Amino acid sequence: MEKVAVFPGSFDPFTVGHESIALRGLTIFDKIIVAVGFNANKKSYFSLEQRLAIIRKVFENEPRIEVISYEGLTVELCKKIKVNNILRGLRTSADFEFERAVGQVNKAMLHEVESVFLLTTPEHSSVNSTVIRDILLHNGDPSQFLPRSINIKEFLPR
Amino acid sequence: MEKVAVFPGSFDPFTVGHESIALRGLTIFDKIIVAVGFNANKKSYFSLEQRLAIIRKVFENEPRIEVISYEGLTVELCKKIKVNNILRGLRTSADFEFERAVGQVNKAMLHEVESVFLLTTPEHSSVNSTVIRDILLHNGDPSQFLPRSINIKEFLPR
Amino acid sequence: MEKVAVFPGSFDPFTVGHESIALRGLTIFDKIIVAVGFNANKKSYFSLEQRLAIIRKVFENEPRIEVISYEGLTVELCKKIKVNNILRGLRTSADFEFERAVGQVNKAMLHEVESVFLLTTPEHSSVNSTVIRDILLHNGDPSQFLPRSINIKEFLPR
Amino acid sequence: MEKVAVFPGSFDPFTVGHESIALRGLTIFDKIIVAVGFNANKKSYFSLEQRLAIIRKVFENEPRIEVISYEGLTVELCKKIKVNNILRGLRTSADFEFERAVGQVNKAMLHEVESVFLLTTPEHSSVNSTVIRDILLHNGDPSQFLPRSINIKEFLPR
Amino acid sequence: MEKVAVFPGSFDPFTVGHESIALRGLTIFDKIIVAVGFNANKKSYFSLEQRLAIIRKVFENEPRIEVISYEGLTVELCKKIKVNNILRGLRTSADFEFERAVGQVNKAMLHEVESVFLLTTPEHSSVNSTVIRDILLHNGDPSQFLPRSINIKEFLPR
Amino acid sequence: MEKVAVFPGSFDPFTVGHESIALRGLTIFDKIIVAVGFNANKKSYFSLEQRLAIIRKVFENEPRIEVISYEGLTVELCKKIKVNNILRGLRTSADFEFERAVGQVNKAMLHEVESVFLLTTPEHSSVNSTVIRDILLHNGDPSQFLPRSINIKEFLPR
Repeated sequence: MEKVAVFPGSFDPFTVGHESIALRGLTIFDKIIVAVGFNANKKSYFSLEQRLAIIRKVFENEPRIEVISYEGLTVELCKKIKVNNILRGLRTSADFEFERAVGQVNKAMLHEVESVFLLTTPEHSSVNSTVIRDILLHNGDPSQFLPRSINIKEFLPR
Repeated sequence: MEKVAVFPGSFDPFTVGHESIALRGLTIFDKIIVAVGFNANKKSYFSLEQRLAIIRKVFENEPRIEVISYEGLTVELCKKIKVNNILRGLRTSADFEFERAVGQVNKAMLHEVESVFLLTTPEHSSVNSTVIRDILLHNGDPSQFLPRSINIKEFLPR
Repeated sequence: MEKVAVFPGSFDPFTVGHESIALRGLTIFDKIIVAVGFNANKKSYFSLEQRLAIIRKVFENEPRIEVISYEGLTVELCKKIKVNNILRGLRTSADFEFERAVGQVNKAMLHEVESVFLLTTPEHSSVNSTVIRDILLHNGDPSQFLPRSINIKEFLPR
Repeated sequence: MEKVAVFPGSFDPFTVGHESIALRGLTIFDKIIVAVGFNANKKSYFSLEQRLAIIRKVFENEPRIEVISYEGLTVELCKKIKVNNILRGLRTSADFEFERAVGQVNKAMLHEVESVFLLTTPEHSSVNSTVIRDILLHNGDPSQFLPRSINIKEFLPR
Repeated sequence: MEKVAVFPGSFDPFTVGHESIALRGLTIFDKIIVAVGFNANKKSYFSLEQRLAIIRKVFENEPRIEVISYEGLTVELCKKIKVNNILRGLRTSADFEFERAVGQVNKAMLHEVESVFLLTTPEHSSVNSTVIRDILLHNGDPSQFLPRSINIKEFLPR
Repeated sequence: MEKVAVFPGSFDPFTVGHESIALRGLTIFDKIIVAVGFNANKKSYFSLEQRLAIIRKVFENEPRIEVISYEGLTVELCKKIKVNNILRGLRTSADFEFERAVGQVNKAMLHEVESVFLLTTPEHSSVNSTVIRDILLHNGDPSQFLPRSINIKEFLPR
């Protein structure tokens, strides 16, 4: 039976750390569904369309990775697409405390759901989307923190 | 292709938390190899034979779980048995800091190795082998922290 | 002499974890005053009236728990109602760092004040008000994270 | 009804931080029982007799504090002396992780038991018995980390 | 060669803890440049002018401390003023996780940059600018958390 | 005036992370004294002589780094050699909690002492002496975790 995991996040934007988690997830799962969360009440730096476009470009040659968007609770997405594994990366112990709470709440709401964690590689452990947005806001160059195939200038908010 | 993970530990003794990680690991992997680490220089409370016997009893009806022992580095075991996934449970942020260091060192020594983490369920988050040994040393009853199929008195050190 | 503690919080909304802390606080104190903080500059999900109504409903049969609201610093409330014990629950180490800072600042501002902490029970350790609001915002059902006597639909913001 | 708490520890030796927790505990409880744990299998720096003598000297003028010794599990002591409150101090988040595990295990073994935590004052947050033993081993002067009424030289191991 | 460090922050407002870090930094560096970050998109409680005025008053008799403002990335400031050492204080482990991420990103963007950390003294470990703003918002008196030479009322937002 | 820092540790053995801290320390201090702590009561894997020989080999071409040994409290060493700056590396938040306690105790015992921390680089954040000893005990090859100039086989315990 094909083993599938969903990799949910806001990915605003998708970082080199996210890319590494998704690719390494493929050594465990047969297919990874990158699911970009959309929240009508929350402002994002990149639009949903831009976020989807970036991730699709990163994985354009990887048929085992699918990119979708969703709105609402992650467990509702899991029920809808019938996937019980949630893939997430862990960088720091602050991350861990947050992910544990989310993972436990998800399991309480949908017992079959299993959160599966991989470690970010050490050189990516300080990279997150907030850092990249901050560099962009100050007109710096964040390209070393982004997937190599991405030229962020093509996707910048107008 | 069959997906296999090794679940290494000293398991002195195997707890209800370990049991939960191994069983839930079977929703991700086709087969789990529980590998009991043996260290000639380190005293254990239960002998290697007792530890193996306890775990084999727990999983006697689960053909997808195999129980072995090993000596030396976990990455050497991975090379020898040709398994690249290491399964581990995470309970607390102290756990996480330790596991991250071990996981990063393992990856530095054997690039193909991937550490995969599951969360212990909340009601097991305070259970560990040290607690159980401490209760046993004080003649208390640790059975609620042990797999249900185990009567620890049958395995006690003479 | 009657021993009284104040249990302050924004309680937006009051969770099953808060309920457990207040009730267990009654084994230590003779009376608990649940004090709902009101901040004119900060938007809450539930109005102050709704938050008070929920907590009063939870403890309607518990004469030793009183429910009040307050505005301003918690130490000012302590001075005003002449209560020196502040009861708080601890879930995670992130919680702890935050609570320690608050507790130390409170003590620096009012030396007689003593912060008293109880542990949340493991199965509630991932529950907080933010999680519940998030579930409500996505039209999910948070009832397992709320006190049993509460039907949250009766209190929903219009 | 008199409210009593047990304050258990190995107290090897009793520090200025322990003294502060016990004294502040008296604002919450009517009586504190300082219980010095004895473990025949574990070497201590100060003998059980010395540890008891130090603590009794510290509280010689405080009739509401009683000093006892015990062997075995703390929950067994609680059952025996019919005290359900366990008082402990919290210094750091590492402390917290450890205390939470102990507190949850204690509650799992004896449901009536409640662990109650106070914060150490900031200037004592780095003081622990290990530090004091280390200073003594190197012939340094740890008196600023000890209760003021104690001249540690009178209690030194021969 | 003169050794210089930049001490960057938003300092909204400058606390007694910040003052201690800057002064102790002078035992390591010959000169400290306190650099107040200005962010046009982020509301501050005190205006940039007020923040600069407060810090300049604190160090009016300390010629080795210079006070400047800057906009943009800290590494860009370092390049511009040709200073490679960034001085920061560490209070808690939550602080540490944050500072490590910032420090690693800074080093990734400008290899010559070195982040140098001092510990806040224990009695200041709970003090931060947020606490002070909160006290001010509630009309409390934060003077014990501010540098002694500052009368905050002279600098209050109108 | 020459600025000097002592870099104390047991260095059993000296790792690539230690090497990085000492070298980067030279951008802040004019001279670094690597001080190998010797404890007659504590067994080490490498003898004091071997530990000193390894570090001296690493820095044989760096005249600004001196290597010494000492016994007793680090603050006593500071007094004796008249150096008030202690250099230490920070890897994880567990490290931080430990280092903060040590740093605060040192400052309490010798007010002039200042602990100065640098971050380990991300790729070294999981490396410590225990890991290296563990690899050696299991006949693995730890050379990637050691300074490049060191062939550990020349220094192995007989």
